[in-house]
Amino acid sequence: MIYMNNAATSYPKPDCVAEAVTDVLNREPGDSYRGGHGQDTFAMLRGELADLLGVSQPEQIALGPNASWGLNTGIFGLPLKSGDCVVATKAEHNSVLRPLYRLRQRGVRVILLDTDETGRVKPELWAEAMRKYRPALAVFTHASNVTGAVNDAEAFCRAAKDAGARVLVDASQTLGFIPVKAENWNADMVAFTGHKYLLGPQGTGGLWVSPEVKLEPLLTGGTGIHSDMDTMPEEMPLHLEAGTGNEPSCAGLLAAIRWQKDNPLKRSEILSRADRLSGALERLGAKVILPQGERTPVISFLLPGITPEETGYILRESCDIVCRTGLHCAPKIFPCLGVPQTVRLSLSRFNTDDEVNEVIEAVEAIIP
Amino acid sequence: MIYMNNAATSYPKPDCVAEAVTDVLNREPGDSYRGGHGQDTFAMLRGELADLLGVSQPEQIALGPNASWGLNTGIFGLPLKSGDCVVATKAEHNSVLRPLYRLRQRGVRVILLDTDETGRVKPELWAEAMRKYRPALAVFTHASNVTGAVNDAEAFCRAAKDAGARVLVDASQTLGFIPVKAENWNADMVAFTGHKYLLGPQGTGGLWVSPEVKLEPLLTGGTGIHSDMDTMPEEMPLHLEAGTGNEPSCAGLLAAIRWQKDNPLKRSEILSRADRLSGALERLGAKVILPQGERTPVISFLLPGITPEETGYILRESCDIVCRTGLHCAPKIFPCLGVPQTVRLSLSRFNTDDEVNEVIEAVEAIIP
Repeated sequence: MIYMNNAATSYPKPDCVAEAVTDVLNREPGDSYRGGHGQDTFAMLRGELADLLGVSQPEQIALGPNASWGLNTGIFGLPLKSGDCVVATKAEHNSVLRPLYRLRQRGVRVILLDTDETGRVKPELWAEAMRKYRPALAVFTHASNVTGAVNDAEAFCRAAKDAGARVLVDASQTLGFIPVKAENWNADMVAFTGHKYLLGPQGTGGLWVSPEVKLEPLLTGGTGIHSDMDTMPEEMPLHLEAGTGNEPSCAGLLAAIRWQKDNPLKRSEILSRADRLSGALERLGAKVILPQGERTPVISFLLPGITPEETGYILRESCDIVCRTGLHCAPKIFPCLGVPQTVRLSLSRFNTDDEVNEVIEAVEAIIP
Repeated sequence: MIYMNNAATSYPKPDCVAEAVTDVLNREPGDSYRGGHGQDTFAMLRGELADLLGVSQPEQIALGPNASWGLNTGIFGLPLKSGDCVVATKAEHNSVLRPLYRLRQRGVRVILLDTDETGRVKPELWAEAMRKYRPALAVFTHASNVTGAVNDAEAFCRAAKDAGARVLVDASQTLGFIPVKAENWNADMVAFTGHKYLLGPQGTGGLWVSPEVKLEPLLTGGTGIHSDMDTMPEEMPLHLEAGTGNEPSCAGLLAAIRWQKDNPLKRSEILSRADRLSGALERLGAKVILPQGERTPVISFLLPGITPEETGYILRESCDIVCRTGLHCAPKIFPCLGVPQTVRLSLSRFNTDDEVNEVIEAVEAIIP
């Protein structure tokens, strides 16, 4: 089996991930907020994540089940009201779009900026929109999950802050592959997931929140301490974390991040492999979406005379190649790209040159 | 180490739990909504949970990170408005209380009914409140996490429905120990967790919703299918499940539930063990809260002349006995119980007679 659906969920994981999860499941539950004893998996994880996110206060990182939770927590946690404006991009995932549509139902104006034909939003367009709309909130995905095009987060954040907006970065498609520098960028919030480039288990993700930003928690509930308060404690990360945390999965993510410190990602190698694949697909007659400049190893393409769905089905059933087809939960980007849907191949550090060769051969065989 | 903090998180787990998690982490991610292939862990888990919850439509069970998520989803998903009334009990956990306080800030009237001195709410009191307040929503915990007292869910649901209320049952402290019969009870919603009596991993839980009840989702985001819709799909469970599901942990919970089918719980044995423990504590001079009738193996007590915190500390540090002390995230029950806090010992099927003896000896040794 050749797995090239890493932009959905990475596979394989380093062995240490399952080992760490097993280790936690087999030892006394050590949820430090509840029992006060044992190793504090959550604090250690926050420490590692702070380094990756480029932030200095690990306690400002709230952990939750996935990036959707982080994005919803960020978007609904701000005191946006009818008449306010939110600017985002057409490259956003439904985990941003659907919360924004809900805000729109509440009277918030929602502007979605076009991407270019490769899924990137031009910095000038973004900056102009910031000046024009003076949004209360600006949201953008650091990289398109459809095309891999990376947005200029530093410039986007600067323009948003210059316009007085709060800015939320969706780093789901970049953290662990493209450097994230939340504090250097002067971002207000960064949402992330643990199960893509970070190689952790599904069920992990979260939101970093600048100490300057006060969010209303999306969920309220038990916090283990301050139990006599009617509201969630003000202190982070407790403020946003209701209920029992996912210690086993967080231990898995912690192990994955530590493993990667010992086994640094060879980004240029992975991107070269992706380039070779996309070049070969193009030579075979595929329409390949090819972002220039900074990008992630995601390749979206279409074959002539065969639908994405059929392409994916044949790759899967005949060649045991796992890709993804359709809208990739990011429906608004397709008119900008000029295609209705795509087949997406998304590589990880574990994909080999031989696998790339096999995929090229498989695609060649199915072109009508 | 003697672990008697199972009302927080169960420990140990059957070996098959970590094995199942490992198995999923080591095979192709099979999130059926996204990839359309692989084993559908989520559907199999919903099937098992439907049996446990006493419901006929597994797809009405939404899975999330914990019971707090389920409770928040149920409470905030209903169209409650200023002037509506919600009735709950003083035995509720903060995962119910704090969402209700937030509703109160929005103008909803919140009534919390007294428990008796053992943490149980009298069915007559409940029924009278239903008639008096005609609440839009009634919420009750099936069992107190502080005392183990089980409420008469069937009678509570009947009275609530007779009064025209929606009724939400918090089964966090019972599912897997006390039978839950959501459809027989005519409940509207049941929230549950996977990591207590079900013996699954932390990071699992959810909410069953009657097909008659339409909730507004708490989180919105990617659903893998129907990606072109601006809103969450209407169909359950997708309607309430935004973002990547926690397949590894759900596989662990599935394995735990299947293991329990092969290894049925000996409820009366566990309760006898708990009775012997509470009887011995009482004879040693402890104030023990002793619910009559149906209950879970949870024992709350106080020793004369020594605070709960000190008691817990000594048990832990001197005897390696893990209990929990304080308010147990259920602060409103204590005035009803007539004590400020307690030490809580909560047993699982894995606690032995020898362990009970050791705990009795340890408590005897620390009584001043």
